[in-house]
Amino acid sequence: MIQRFANHLSEPRPIGIVGGLGPYAGYDLVRKIFRWTKADSDQDHLPLMLHSFPGWIPERPAYLLGRTRENPGEDIGSVMAQLARNGARVIGMPCNTAHSPRILDVALERLRETGLDVTFVSIIESAVRQVRELCPNGGRVGLMGTVATLRERLYQDALEAAGLEPALPDDDDCELVQRAISDPDFGVKAFSDPVSPRARRILLDAARRLAEEKRVSLILLGCTEIPVAVTESHLWGVPVVDATSVLARELIRASCPERLKEPSNPQSEKDSA
Amino acid sequence: MIQRFANHLSEPRPIGIVGGLGPYAGYDLVRKIFRWTKADSDQDHLPLMLHSFPGWIPERPAYLLGRTRENPGEDIGSVMAQLARNGARVIGMPCNTAHSPRILDVALERLRETGLDVTFVSIIESAVRQVRELCPNGGRVGLMGTVATLRERLYQDALEAAGLEPALPDDDDCELVQRAISDPDFGVKAFSDPVSPRARRILLDAARRLAEEKRVSLILLGCTEIPVAVTESHLWGVPVVDATSVLARELIRASCPERLKEPSNPQSEKDSA
Repeated sequence: MIQRFANHLSEPRPIGIVGGLGPYAGYDLVRKIFRWTKADSDQDHLPLMLHSFPGWIPERPAYLLGRTRENPGEDIGSVMAQLARNGARVIGMPCNTAHSPRILDVALERLRETGLDVTFVSIIESAVRQVRELCPNGGRVGLMGTVATLRERLYQDALEAAGLEPALPDDDDCELVQRAISDPDFGVKAFSDPVSPRARRILLDAARRLAEEKRVSLILLGCTEIPVAVTESHLWGVPVVDATSVLARELIRASCPERLKEPSNPQSEKDSA
Repeated sequence: MIQRFANHLSEPRPIGIVGGLGPYAGYDLVRKIFRWTKADSDQDHLPLMLHSFPGWIPERPAYLLGRTRENPGEDIGSVMAQLARNGARVIGMPCNTAHSPRILDVALERLRETGLDVTFVSIIESAVRQVRELCPNGGRVGLMGTVATLRERLYQDALEAAGLEPALPDDDDCELVQRAISDPDFGVKAFSDPVSPRARRILLDAARRLAEEKRVSLILLGCTEIPVAVTESHLWGVPVVDATSVLARELIRASCPERLKEPSNPQSEKDSA
């Protein structure tokens, strides 16, 4: 395979996806890559590999919140290196929490050790750039994510550096959002297809309070489990940025920009009505 | 990674999926594997790789119908071997047409050349076994698939060997079903998410005529693009067997039988109402 890639330098650069964090987020990213690709036939779609090894990658929040010393970056880096050795030249990871530098730097070091020329596309940087484009004059951005992502300030620092003001849900809502993501009885990780009504209601309520009480001009879904449950393009009158969808577009752009579908295409975001 | 597999002999056998045939069928199979897996957390899901290289695998019908001499089995076999070298020990391919022995035998020979112990799970054999279980006393089975799959008699021979009577749509309907799958202006391969109303209507009409005019006791969706468009568990009063869903269950069973969810679970087939 790698040899075939080398013979097709003008061809798309193969996309590698670090899946399993969680599994449905990987599948959601694959779906969004297909959705945003200009394609009339099988052969028009981009080369893509999804490696989903959830059982071998320790929980990211447990490490970031100090409950374990086992850094998941090592195993994530092994998956990245494996994707690269299989020919991936553009890599994305649909898990915001795993973008904490304490995890990601270790993983990217493993990737670098392969000596292969691979572009890692950050979901955080991609999403913040998209938010910046939608709010060119700054503004207050409502942020939903795991407790670990918020405590690590993964988005807050990047938004502030881009001249934007992050607004978080209240502490109670942050805890509820975390449960909507990971509670074994009703969370999105346990019930993804379909999502439980309880998880979806929690997420919509938290979004409503961001819109109404914090008066944000945009809501950023900064956990890849959330858009599995919440597929609207607007909530309570406020535009929503789905970081997974932005990552999908940036991966296509890095692989083969001429295959990127324009956002105006009516087929591109069927769930956004 | 392969070393880690070796250290976990009691762990699930990693699943490899030959994607890209078409891309949405690969994604539909991943979804159905997740859906049929007993899992309360990320870590409960099975290790899985999807390799989707649609641009490098020649069209299967073109080869089977004699329009090209390039056998796609060579490239399919390369993908299978690549999955095996990455640790896949159970492999599935969500494309019925590619299960023609003229293609599959070449591919499996490439897989065998790796010398690795890999189980290939046939979608045809899996689906026919499921149909047989649902029709223990025989019966007439309505069959929908590509023109190439029908001409190759992939399902007809297997159904007859199992004591079942295959019933095909009329020639006009067969052509229409083919267009619903592959027409660049409205077919499922070009418009998968969402599917075009025209493609769905054609498929439902063909199913209706199988149910009403051919009086079949079951309808078998023998092309992996069809269940992307038709997700019902019954059509016109007749039970539907979705070969992709059956393949998903057989792959889980071959990987780690204790993780296979029972069909009675209400979450398992949300689209089947």
